[in-house]
Amino acid sequence: MQPDRHSRALAAHTLQQFRTLSPLTHCMTNEVVQSFTANTLLALGASPAMVIEPEEASQFAAIASALLINVGTLTESRAIAMRAAVEQAQQAKTPWTLDPVAVGALDFRRRFCLDILALRPAAIRGNASEILALAGMNAGGRGVDTTDTALAAIPAAQTLARQVGTIVAVTGEVDFVTDGQRTVSIHGGDPLMTRVVGTGCALSAVVAASCALEGDRLNNVASACSWMKQAGQRATEQSTGPGSFVPAFLDALYNLNAQEQA
Amino acid sequence: MQPDRHSRALAAHTLQQFRTLSPLTHCMTNEVVQSFTANTLLALGASPAMVIEPEEASQFAAIASALLINVGTLTESRAIAMRAAVEQAQQAKTPWTLDPVAVGALDFRRRFCLDILALRPAAIRGNASEILALAGMNAGGRGVDTTDTALAAIPAAQTLARQVGTIVAVTGEVDFVTDGQRTVSIHGGDPLMTRVVGTGCALSAVVAASCALEGDRLNNVASACSWMKQAGQRATEQSTGPGSFVPAFLDALYNLNAQEQA
Amino acid sequence: MQPDRHSRALAAHTLQQFRTLSPLTHCMTNEVVQSFTANTLLALGASPAMVIEPEEASQFAAIASALLINVGTLTESRAIAMRAAVEQAQQAKTPWTLDPVAVGALDFRRRFCLDILALRPAAIRGNASEILALAGMNAGGRGVDTTDTALAAIPAAQTLARQVGTIVAVTGEVDFVTDGQRTVSIHGGDPLMTRVVGTGCALSAVVAASCALEGDRLNNVASACSWMKQAGQRATEQSTGPGSFVPAFLDALYNLNAQEQA
Repeated sequence: MQPDRHSRALAAHTLQQFRTLSPLTHCMTNEVVQSFTANTLLALGASPAMVIEPEEASQFAAIASALLINVGTLTESRAIAMRAAVEQAQQAKTPWTLDPVAVGALDFRRRFCLDILALRPAAIRGNASEILALAGMNAGGRGVDTTDTALAAIPAAQTLARQVGTIVAVTGEVDFVTDGQRTVSIHGGDPLMTRVVGTGCALSAVVAASCALEGDRLNNVASACSWMKQAGQRATEQSTGPGSFVPAFLDALYNLNAQEQA
Repeated sequence: MQPDRHSRALAAHTLQQFRTLSPLTHCMTNEVVQSFTANTLLALGASPAMVIEPEEASQFAAIASALLINVGTLTESRAIAMRAAVEQAQQAKTPWTLDPVAVGALDFRRRFCLDILALRPAAIRGNASEILALAGMNAGGRGVDTTDTALAAIPAAQTLARQVGTIVAVTGEVDFVTDGQRTVSIHGGDPLMTRVVGTGCALSAVVAASCALEGDRLNNVASACSWMKQAGQRATEQSTGPGSFVPAFLDALYNLNAQEQA
Repeated sequence: MQPDRHSRALAAHTLQQFRTLSPLTHCMTNEVVQSFTANTLLALGASPAMVIEPEEASQFAAIASALLINVGTLTESRAIAMRAAVEQAQQAKTPWTLDPVAVGALDFRRRFCLDILALRPAAIRGNASEILALAGMNAGGRGVDTTDTALAAIPAAQTLARQVGTIVAVTGEVDFVTDGQRTVSIHGGDPLMTRVVGTGCALSAVVAASCALEGDRLNNVASACSWMKQAGQRATEQSTGPGSFVPAFLDALYNLNAQEQA
């Protein structure tokens, strides 16, 4: 039995709050997707900032509304800065989100991710292979690709959510968001999104930003997934390939529920 | 009383010179905007090059027509390379431009910026908060956002220009460029530009490149601001959000005053 | 006398094989072009991964179908990781490709490139200035620009191919691919491609990925050049400048020979 669908009306309501708050989102993410991530946040009305030097990252994590840690192009010096930022975020009660990119395939980042889980992220966003690997149920996977379906990873996501005390979003053709007890599903999107680099990483940044909102965090994270699914679907309808998808996607995020925009 | 408007005819004339020279512009900029910065320079007819290793950065600063230093994602190793490049630029008489991104919010980059000012940039480009902070009149600001208007920062810009012996461009809804004595304003653009990452950083690269031109540097820098304002306005008219803005903006830069292109 | 033209029918046939294999392409490339490179590979049906930390890069080079080394923003730490990856690639028989960006202008990367040539790349892709410099026939060149034509660099390319035992692609208005004995030419494209950052670097990634295919490597590399020339030409016809070129180019790659797609 599939989990209940998250309501689009609820997602629209959460988007209104998101645009009002305009969360200052500190992104420590991989080299490949920084520009697309920043543009995704800006299109939705958030305020992104990429700050990476250890001293600065720590200082900024206390100012920011939310922090994203994405290990896509992790290096030793970046890991040091990320840890400093997460420690400061914990002290300052800044919610932080983990995107464990390709954690099942590479040992250095797996050690880092498992280690930093102890500092209790507000949310974790990954594909099925990544969530399975993080939960210790590695089923392979050759990098950023997912060779497992999100549906099959729900038990691992629920276990991980309970163990860490966090929200886990396992995303794919259908997204699932769980706090370990409740689980909701988010439909929409299009396979074309997998032909554009950074859609998953940008989603993690939106998830991170959504954790700055008041209210039910499960709903906030599910709403973030919903905005991206809706924009992805609309953009696919208006594009002739992955190139024209990108501007159409950012426009769709910008214009989502436009009647409700200030 | 607002400063006199910079003439669009003068900006068009300067653009002709810019395209003829095609300045080789050495960009040491932040991780987020490198691609957009390079594409902006290429669209205008300049020749960008991102060279970052200390030995190479020093070697290249002597070959280049102009150098940009942008501290958006400063790290200790990047700071070392930037200093080596600036020192070489000074010896080789390569004009260099400083973009003090978020200098008011973060201490590490503020120390770096204040320190490197002694090596006398040809120009400084920032938003109001950044120029106020660099002039020692910090009024807050939560990162790359500006919480002050450019108009209010004119006195700080003029003081900074006189103290350092440089051109200061303080940009926002209206841009102002000053050498400490003369001040001109540049109108145009659209708030949509603030929803696209890197428009300010790319402007700094164009300002840097414009400093390679002969003639009145105040006019050259104001012309750079004018090209970007004009292209931003045209692109906004042709786009339905920040996604479609980007290709439209680069096309507009490429086609600016097309009748005068070779 | 110009070399024979590579057949578009052959390029179409190779593209079918490429899409079927979907080579997992490990890209160690410069900071500026990572996103465009990944999107180019995704549009063609390959699977890109950017992994850069020394331990991870070595681990991943053994899993990947192909490896790209691009020295555009080389640093000392990146050079160490690249060497580790290439050594592992050699052991694991993963074919690796070198893009010697601006090798003629900068000493640090020239030393690195000449050094790493001993580890025998499957292919080298560069513009005329870069291939001449790598072959020890430096004719100048002010960075990433090419001041020589590809035609004039054919003898250097052939010598380099024989000495190293590799395929050399020297690209420009016309591309030439040689194994030292046979040489073919690839026509198409448009000068507008030089106004977009990363078209050459992305081509190198596609060349790298094509080296994962079975069969005649000279044909595989020439096919990679052909796909990019064809998409570049189609995109130019559909765009009004370098901004609209980018989405049109990725769409054209995605839709190339669509009748043959699965």
